[in-house]
Amino acid sequence: MKKIGKQTIEFDNPPTISETACIVGPKEANGPLAKYFDQCLDDEFWGESTWEKAESKIIKETANLVISKSGIATSDIDYCFAGDLLNQCISSSFGLRDANIPYFGIFGACSTFVEGLSLASVLAESCAKNVLVATSSHFCSAEKQFRFPLELGNQRPPSSQWTVTGAGSAIVSKEGNGPFVTHITPGKIIDMGIKDGNSMGAAMAPAALDTLITHFKDTNRAPSYYDVIATGDLGYIGKEILTELAKKEGYNIEPNYDDCGVLIFDKKNQDTHSGGSGCACCGSVFSGYFFKQLRDKKIKKILLIATGALMNATSSQQGESIPGIAHAISIEL
Amino acid sequence: MKKIGKQTIEFDNPPTISETACIVGPKEANGPLAKYFDQCLDDEFWGESTWEKAESKIIKETANLVISKSGIATSDIDYCFAGDLLNQCISSSFGLRDANIPYFGIFGACSTFVEGLSLASVLAESCAKNVLVATSSHFCSAEKQFRFPLELGNQRPPSSQWTVTGAGSAIVSKEGNGPFVTHITPGKIIDMGIKDGNSMGAAMAPAALDTLITHFKDTNRAPSYYDVIATGDLGYIGKEILTELAKKEGYNIEPNYDDCGVLIFDKKNQDTHSGGSGCACCGSVFSGYFFKQLRDKKIKKILLIATGALMNATSSQQGESIPGIAHAISIEL
Repeated sequence: MKKIGKQTIEFDNPPTISETACIVGPKEANGPLAKYFDQCLDDEFWGESTWEKAESKIIKETANLVISKSGIATSDIDYCFAGDLLNQCISSSFGLRDANIPYFGIFGACSTFVEGLSLASVLAESCAKNVLVATSSHFCSAEKQFRFPLELGNQRPPSSQWTVTGAGSAIVSKEGNGPFVTHITPGKIIDMGIKDGNSMGAAMAPAALDTLITHFKDTNRAPSYYDVIATGDLGYIGKEILTELAKKEGYNIEPNYDDCGVLIFDKKNQDTHSGGSGCACCGSVFSGYFFKQLRDKKIKKILLIATGALMNATSSQQGESIPGIAHAISIEL
Repeated sequence: MKKIGKQTIEFDNPPTISETACIVGPKEANGPLAKYFDQCLDDEFWGESTWEKAESKIIKETANLVISKSGIATSDIDYCFAGDLLNQCISSSFGLRDANIPYFGIFGACSTFVEGLSLASVLAESCAKNVLVATSSHFCSAEKQFRFPLELGNQRPPSSQWTVTGAGSAIVSKEGNGPFVTHITPGKIIDMGIKDGNSMGAAMAPAALDTLITHFKDTNRAPSYYDVIATGDLGYIGKEILTELAKKEGYNIEPNYDDCGVLIFDKKNQDTHSGGSGCACCGSVFSGYFFKQLRDKKIKKILLIATGALMNATSSQQGESIPGIAHAISIEL
């Protein structure tokens, strides 16, 4: 592999995404993508006593599922990358503590899935046969931790997004017949001073723009090169901002651009305001929907840009703005 | 690079650790390693209004310092890896948001420094010229978040450790004259069921053992191969446990083994009970002390094993045990 342009890595022997899996919660099961998910849960607890334990179980079972679907023996999975939104990423570390696979914990907030796929691809091209990637989020644990406990019954402002309950997981392999990871463009932290924790899409859109344009410049590609350009969880507001900002920079992404947070819920009937968010938003929509579209050759080239907001509850209380980040990965047949 | 044995990566063109830097707090400045640190602070706030902001400033200035000491232009640093103990790793993301370097957030609790050095080495051998690694911790922000606010004046039990206030940072480069990163052994999550959040050394020692023995087996090396074997923050209790457990497995590490948490504070006069801990424990002791020992050729081969406890306050409240992890890196002249 080699670095090209400002910050993109081009793979000489592009690794394959061998398999993906996703498990989602009951709200996601009522959304427009339900039929693409491997498993839909009936409730937010899945038999556990707390939301945190439920989230851990979801990522654990999703990782188990991708391994069993892939037919790859666990002993042939060399390393794994995982992370989530809970403090100290406990969903991942508790969910994968019995996996018996060397473990790299990552934290990219909702950009975690693509951060994981990126680093897994680097390891797969350079020294590993198979690398596991997993991420999760949970509406109830996220609301409790970042905003208010659900029991308070707070109203959510129209700009807020709905954290996806679920997990997405993938195995990236050195050998395989694709879909191939051809490029990654790891993003810089971009902070435009937005402080509203209920307007995440607006906070993250400038980071998505920076990574998007850097990717196009580094690879000499135009938006039209891709069948789909998909951001992770900018939601309705962030999607509009990114489309507009990109146009101002001379890139028209409108014809082939969509956002996982826009796709996963029904705007009319599901009352999620500005759409979905969370690590599992990008994780489950890619693992469930886009990966199958690639497998079925309905799309052949996708640029997946997962976006993350790198604040916490304390930083917001202390008056800080919200730093955003976006990592892009180009996946092609 | 290639994978050897069960989980070790051996570098064909070992990357160089070009430079390190560390800034520590006032307690560390009164410890036995004070003269090795680049900068010692007079107080825990460093002019900031909160501990979290102070910690962010420490990691920011430490990263700036390693860059200026190295003489490498920021534009020649391709990527960075950073993480810390604060919820959602805000010390790192706020500290590095102005760095203008593509950013991979990592979370390995107190194993973060070696996790970062490991992934930076992979990127340096495969595609990057220079990669920055940074990590921080802060006694006051950690106590507030993981145990009790300092204002409560709680007593600390004898098994507890003192979170190091400070940051460690390094630049890993493709080209250079060493010290070289020759091997990394990323660790698995090991959970032996210990639930006492004031006995971290005991909780992490089994993970250190697993990685240590795997490293020896994978590389066909004996403990005596290294001038120094150093764990990150097992402290007095964990150090004793690891020494004993290793002996039972047939590895006598006693002659050349030490722990950064034991080295950084004076047991008699500094009242830290079982020693130091935190991401900055391994980060600052390596960046300040061991790196200079390597540069001065006082030691030629070190195996650095950073250990992390992957729980959070909520998981402990919910009755969960503490999953441990340990990542090892072999650094040689």
